[in-house]
Amino acid sequence: MQNPTIPPHWPLTDLAASLPQAVPFVGPETLQRQRGISFAARLGANEQRFGPSPLAVAAITQAAGDVWMYGDPENHDLKAALAAKHGCAPAHTVLGEGVDGLLGLIVRLTVDMGTPVVASRGTYPTFGYHVRGHGGQMIDTPYQGDASDPAALVDLARKHRAKLVYLANPDNPMGSHHTGASVAQMLDDLPEGCLLILDEAYIDFAPAGTAPDITPDDPRVIRLRSFSKSYGLAGLRLGYGMCAPELARAFDRIRNHFGIGRLVQAGGLAALGDHAHLAHVVAGSVAARARLAQIAGDHGLRALPSATNFSCIDMGKDGNFARATLAALGDLGLFIRMPGTPPQDRCLRISHGTVDDLDLLAQALPQALARAAGQ
Amino acid sequence: MQNPTIPPHWPLTDLAASLPQAVPFVGPETLQRQRGISFAARLGANEQRFGPSPLAVAAITQAAGDVWMYGDPENHDLKAALAAKHGCAPAHTVLGEGVDGLLGLIVRLTVDMGTPVVASRGTYPTFGYHVRGHGGQMIDTPYQGDASDPAALVDLARKHRAKLVYLANPDNPMGSHHTGASVAQMLDDLPEGCLLILDEAYIDFAPAGTAPDITPDDPRVIRLRSFSKSYGLAGLRLGYGMCAPELARAFDRIRNHFGIGRLVQAGGLAALGDHAHLAHVVAGSVAARARLAQIAGDHGLRALPSATNFSCIDMGKDGNFARATLAALGDLGLFIRMPGTPPQDRCLRISHGTVDDLDLLAQALPQALARAAGQ
Repeated sequence: MQNPTIPPHWPLTDLAASLPQAVPFVGPETLQRQRGISFAARLGANEQRFGPSPLAVAAITQAAGDVWMYGDPENHDLKAALAAKHGCAPAHTVLGEGVDGLLGLIVRLTVDMGTPVVASRGTYPTFGYHVRGHGGQMIDTPYQGDASDPAALVDLARKHRAKLVYLANPDNPMGSHHTGASVAQMLDDLPEGCLLILDEAYIDFAPAGTAPDITPDDPRVIRLRSFSKSYGLAGLRLGYGMCAPELARAFDRIRNHFGIGRLVQAGGLAALGDHAHLAHVVAGSVAARARLAQIAGDHGLRALPSATNFSCIDMGKDGNFARATLAALGDLGLFIRMPGTPPQDRCLRISHGTVDDLDLLAQALPQALARAAGQ
Repeated sequence: MQNPTIPPHWPLTDLAASLPQAVPFVGPETLQRQRGISFAARLGANEQRFGPSPLAVAAITQAAGDVWMYGDPENHDLKAALAAKHGCAPAHTVLGEGVDGLLGLIVRLTVDMGTPVVASRGTYPTFGYHVRGHGGQMIDTPYQGDASDPAALVDLARKHRAKLVYLANPDNPMGSHHTGASVAQMLDDLPEGCLLILDEAYIDFAPAGTAPDITPDDPRVIRLRSFSKSYGLAGLRLGYGMCAPELARAFDRIRNHFGIGRLVQAGGLAALGDHAHLAHVVAGSVAARARLAQIAGDHGLRALPSATNFSCIDMGKDGNFARATLAALGDLGLFIRMPGTPPQDRCLRISHGTVDDLDLLAQALPQALARAAGQ
């Protein structure tokens, strides 16, 4: 064979060649390999520490021997169950490989070179990752009082004729939330031709009334939900969207039709039916939220209000102090993440863990604070 | 709230709005729902009828309780195992949600509006689905003797300055193959700046020497392998590619980083270690291939040579006759598919099934042939 040589960047498109190597998140496994440690508590990715429904585990186990078969590419049974849960039709639902996968598909359907898109500065980074990946122009506005700012988002969308606005409600990484009525008002204020991506991954942990009352046919919004949080199935990779059927059908033009595998469909379907487990999870999160506030208070720190399965702890100083505390907690065996943008980067974002997890945190925090203060 | 109305096709990009609703494959579950039947034998999707490795099933079952955790987004252990298997480095490997998912990523990295791309007419349709989905221009050349035509593919690539050439070797849907030496020659003949996508999903069923001897750093080719066929894990959704590290790294710029879930990684890793099961599967396929040839011969039909886990049966007449036989076999409880392009559509494509599967086929075929002949 010839000695192969190619021009640099070939065979990538100009866009692909221009993209950075950066990734949205570094996983805890990578940190463990890099630092030669083993985390005793995983509290950084808002995984659901009370575990999946035993019914979901049983359904996965039962389906495992059938894994030689592709899953149903129409996801018929799962879509029917979601429609029943939400009082809409299966035609209003779309499934994806997690909310991350759905965000990629939505952006691909709507964004090309230069398309203006609006979000909060410092919000869930995977949305921006996909927007940049499709050549879109990301326009952002800062948080106000550690919460997203719907009025400012609407103003920006109007000013820049944005095609998409992204709002996580409740918010990630801050845990704050707006009422459903505020979100409905935001929808009414959006300029014509602008689609709201309403990421409700944490909605099951939020107060009643946080989900806006939106007709499933509303063409101005797509709502996203996750099986990774309240359902404890992050390792399955399953999320769904609800939107007008015209938009939902468009996903079929570009999606990986067999992408939602057989075990994923079986596990998701079983999880949807286990209401008792969901209640157990939410109760565990409420207890952990109170405990985290107490642990913070013991050291003169404040836990921000949380409508999610994590709490931001205001470390009371700047980003450097928070980062030093995070690093020290990592050395002590706790996987935790934090917001990346000032002034929110004064906080640590800690998942609502089990009693054991939070015992470890309570034990490690004074040491970590002392180490960070000594630097 | 306001009464929502939107312009037609909004908010899609021009490209997304122009795409057809068509999907690459209709699943057997859809056919069962549409026709109110239940298939007794699934022989249409080249699933692996001898099942997954018991070690893979055990690994999935064992990991099921841990599914609250995201999978490692770097897929470290699985990439290391693949590198060991192939004598390359982890940096030469990329993982995807099946070969389908990888095809989507490769096309997104390399194809934009009008990019010329070359493939065989009638080959695996999901590749063309992705090319059209990214606005590429699909240029094809017919099969020669029920096999892909490497020389014609190279000529077309040269003539149209194609950026990609797709070759499935062994071929799907025909089951034919070229020697590894022919593929290596094709690589040398490719015009500069053209990437070969070498889809080797069926390579474990092919004669020794079918896989070309290519250095893993070769920048002219990406090889794709599947866990859906010889490993019997179609319902997990796992495929991988091997290519030059520069190209492999580019996938990290656009992929769904947590897309390969925790159970998928566990199952794939365990399957790779079960060499005895792989040998058992290949032996089962060889036996089924002989039995299918015999069943065909019993009715004066011919099974084409197969280097895959399926065989094409030449039904001896035109596409209409083959389609009528396929429909009759469907009514009799057999899920089978067939090539869509003349003259290959004179054939049925039947997966290498179990003894029971092929008993059902042997029983149903005379009835189906009689029904098709009577139409």
